Amino acid sequence: MALIVQKYGGTSVATIERIKAVADRVIATRAQGHQVIVVVSAMSGETDRLLKLAKEITDLPDPRELDVILTTGEQVTIGLLSIVLQNRHCPARSYTGFQVKILTDEAYNKARILSIDDHRIRADLSQDRVVVVAGFQGVDAEGNITTLGRGGSDTTAVALAAALKADECQIYTDVDGVYTTDPRIVPEARRLDRICFEEMLEMASLGSKVLQIRSVEFASKYNVPLRVLSSFTEGQGTLIAPEDNRMEQALISGIAFNRDEAKLTLLGVPDKPGLAYQILALIADANIEIDMIIQNVGADGHTDFTFTVHRNEFKKALGILQQQAPSLGVQEVRGDDRIAKISVVGVGMRSHAGIASTLFKALAAEGINIQMISTSEIKISVVVDEKYLELGVRTLHSAFHLEQATA
Amino acid sequence: MALIVQKYGGTSVATIERIKAVADRVIATRAQGHQVIVVVSAMSGETDRLLKLAKEITDLPDPRELDVILTTGEQVTIGLLSIVLQNRHCPARSYTGFQVKILTDEAYNKARILSIDDHRIRADLSQDRVVVVAGFQGVDAEGNITTLGRGGSDTTAVALAAALKADECQIYTDVDGVYTTDPRIVPEARRLDRICFEEMLEMASLGSKVLQIRSVEFASKYNVPLRVLSSFTEGQGTLIAPEDNRMEQALISGIAFNRDEAKLTLLGVPDKPGLAYQILALIADANIEIDMIIQNVGADGHTDFTFTVHRNEFKKALGILQQQAPSLGVQEVRGDDRIAKISVVGVGMRSHAGIASTLFKALAAEGINIQMISTSEIKISVVVDEKYLELGVRTLHSAFHLEQATA
Repeated sequence: MALIVQKYGGTSVATIERIKAVADRVIATRAQGHQVIVVVSAMSGETDRLLKLAKEITDLPDPRELDVILTTGEQVTIGLLSIVLQNRHCPARSYTGFQVKILTDEAYNKARILSIDDHRIRADLSQDRVVVVAGFQGVDAEGNITTLGRGGSDTTAVALAAALKADECQIYTDVDGVYTTDPRIVPEARRLDRICFEEMLEMASLGSKVLQIRSVEFASKYNVPLRVLSSFTEGQGTLIAPEDNRMEQALISGIAFNRDEAKLTLLGVPDKPGLAYQILALIADANIEIDMIIQNVGADGHTDFTFTVHRNEFKKALGILQQQAPSLGVQEVRGDDRIAKISVVGVGMRSHAGIASTLFKALAAEGINIQMISTSEIKISVVVDEKYLELGVRTLHSAFHLEQATA
Repeated sequence: MALIVQKYGGTSVATIERIKAVADRVIATRAQGHQVIVVVSAMSGETDRLLKLAKEITDLPDPRELDVILTTGEQVTIGLLSIVLQNRHCPARSYTGFQVKILTDEAYNKARILSIDDHRIRADLSQDRVVVVAGFQGVDAEGNITTLGRGGSDTTAVALAAALKADECQIYTDVDGVYTTDPRIVPEARRLDRICFEEMLEMASLGSKVLQIRSVEFASKYNVPLRVLSSFTEGQGTLIAPEDNRMEQALISGIAFNRDEAKLTLLGVPDKPGLAYQILALIADANIEIDMIIQNVGADGHTDFTFTVHRNEFKKALGILQQQAPSLGVQEVRGDDRIAKISVVGVGMRSHAGIASTLFKALAAEGINIQMISTSEIKISVVVDEKYLELGVRTLHSAFHLEQATA
C-alpha cells in the first residue's frame, strides 16, 4: 500500500463529466490498495471569470480581497469531486486551505507555504477516506486567505506529498509526460520515462511548460518523486525523481527553447571595475529581470557587454540604456528582440566531453550563426536569430539522437 | 456615532453596478459618522448556479460538501464589495464565516449560530474600517463549513448586530418596508413606520415574505432593532422593534394571508381520550408539520376533527389518514386543498374587545363563509374557500381602516 497524491488541473475538472472521469482514476488507484489525496484546481475558465469580475472594478484590485475571490474556484471543485466520489460509494472529504491547514506567508497572490498541518488528513486516511484538497490556496498566521499564484495547485500537491511523506505525487495534465522537446516542432520527439530533478528544473526554466518550476524545486528539495501523466489517456507518464546512479545516464535528456527573450548590447564600454554592476543595477532598479549576461575580454580599454531580458521588457530596458549611455561612457546601444534561445539539457554531460563541439558543429552545418553562449554544469544554451528556432531544435534533436530510446 | 449593521440580499449585489450602489450607501452611512458592518448574500442566481452543478451529480448531494460549494457565492461578493469600497478610498476588509468566526452547530444546510467571535471585527472598526461579512455561513467546532439555510444572511446580520450590540440592523431588500398587507392585492396598503417584534413574527409566520422568521426571532430575543429598507429607493423603511408603550397602539397592524395550506377533516371520530394524539402522531411520524387544529364538542360519543398541513404534504397526509381510518374507528376522511388562510394581526387587540366581531361581520357582509377559526393573543386567523382570498383581504383591510395612518 502506497500513499499517492494526485493533482488534476483546470481542464481535467472543466465539467461534471470530466470530474466523473477524475473520480474513476481516483477509485481505480484506491482499488489497487493505495491511499489517495487529491488536489484540484478551479474548473477551467472559472479563475478567469472571477478575475474579470474584479477587473471590472479596477485594474489593480486589493491583493487580499482578490485572493478571497479567486480561492472560491477551487473550493467549488473540491465539493463537486467529493460528491461524485461519495455518490460512487467512495468515502471522501474535502478540505480548503484553511481547513487543512496550509499555512503560508502573508504575500497575497504569490504566497509561499510555510507548513502543513496533517492531522485531519491522516485521520481521514486512516478511516479509509479519500481526501480532496483545494489547490492554490492557504491562510497566513492571521487567518487571511492567500493564494500561491497561478499554477500553485502543483505546489500544493507537492507540498502535501512532502508533508505526508507520500510515495509519489502525480500531476495529471493535458500532456502525457515530459518530451525530449516540443513534439509540435519535432514530430520524432519522444516521451521520457524518467528525468532527474536538475534536468527538469533546467527544462522548466528554459521554457518547457509542463510543470511549474516552483513545484519542481519543492519536489527536489523534499525528495518527492513526481510523475507527470495525462488525464485523458492511459500511460506511465514521466517520473521526475532524484538522479539514479544505477543506470547509464543519457548524454542529453532534452532540448528546451524559448522565444520570450530579447538581447541588449552595449558597445565600447569603458573596461573598468564596477561598470557591469552599474549597468545591471539600472535594469534591476526598474524591476526588469536579466537572464543571460556576456562580457567579452576588452581591447584598448573598451569592451562589449550583452545581456538578455524578457521580450515584454525590451523597450523599457532599451529606453533606460539609451538615456544613460552618455553618462556611462558607452559608445553605442543596440537591441534585438528577434532572437531565440535553444538549450540542450542533460546530467550526462557532467561526465562526457564533446557535447559543446557536437552542438556547434551541428548548427554550423546548417549555417546557423550563434550569437551568445551560456553554459551550466548540465546545460548549454545558445542564442540564435529567431528565424532559426525550429531548424535549430530539429538539428540538435537529431544530432544527439534523442528520437532513440536509451538504456 | 452609532454602530449599524447593513444586510444586502442577492438582487442588491447582482452586478458590479449594483455592488457600487451598495458601496454608495455604505459610504454615505459612514459619512454620517457611523461605524458600519455589511453582510452580503451571493450575487443573485449564483446560489442556484452552484446548486445546479451539484444536482447534475445527484439529487441528494452530501450536505457537508454542498455547504462547501454554496458558501463560495457569498465569499465572492465580500471580496468584490471590499474592492469597490477600497477603490473609493473607504478602508474595508472582508471576512468569511470561518474568519469572523461564526461558530455554528454541525447541522449542515440548516445550521444554527452558537457564538460569534467579535475581536477581529472590533479591531477593524476601531481602525475606522468598514467590515464586510459573508452572510449565510459559519463553521462548526471542527472547522467544517456550514450554512444557515436559505435566507440565512438575514440571520447572520442580526446575530452580528446582537454580538456587537449594534444600534440598528438594517435589512436592505427589494421592497421598501413592511406593509399593512400585500399591495398587489390591496393597492391602498400602507407602509408601516413601525411594527413590534411579536406582530412581525405573526406576519412572517402567516406568509409575509419580507423577512425570514428566524432572523425576527433572533432580533426579538436579543432586542436588536431591525429596519427593513429598499436597496433601490430612498426612504425610512419599517422599524421592527420592541413594543413601544409610549404611543397609542394601532388596533390592527396588518393583514397576512397564505394559500399554502390544505385542510383535512375526520368525521365521526370516537370521542375518547388520546385519539387526537393518535391521529396527529401518524402525521408527525411522516414528518408532516401541522398548523391549525380544531376539534368540536362531540355529540352521541362522536366528534369531528380538522387540521391543516402544507399543501405540498396534502396528498401524503390524506393517504395516511384514509389508510388508518378503519383502525381508528373514523367514519369518514375528507380533504380540501383549495383553502386560504387570512389573519389579522395587532398587539392592540390585547386591550380591545370586538375585533373578532368586526371581522366576522365584515366577511359575512360579503357572503364569505368561515370554515375554521384560530386565535392567539395578537392575531385571529380564519380559513375560507381559496376563491375568497383577495376579496377577504380587501374587505378586512377596509373594515379595520388600515389605509389610514394612525397616531
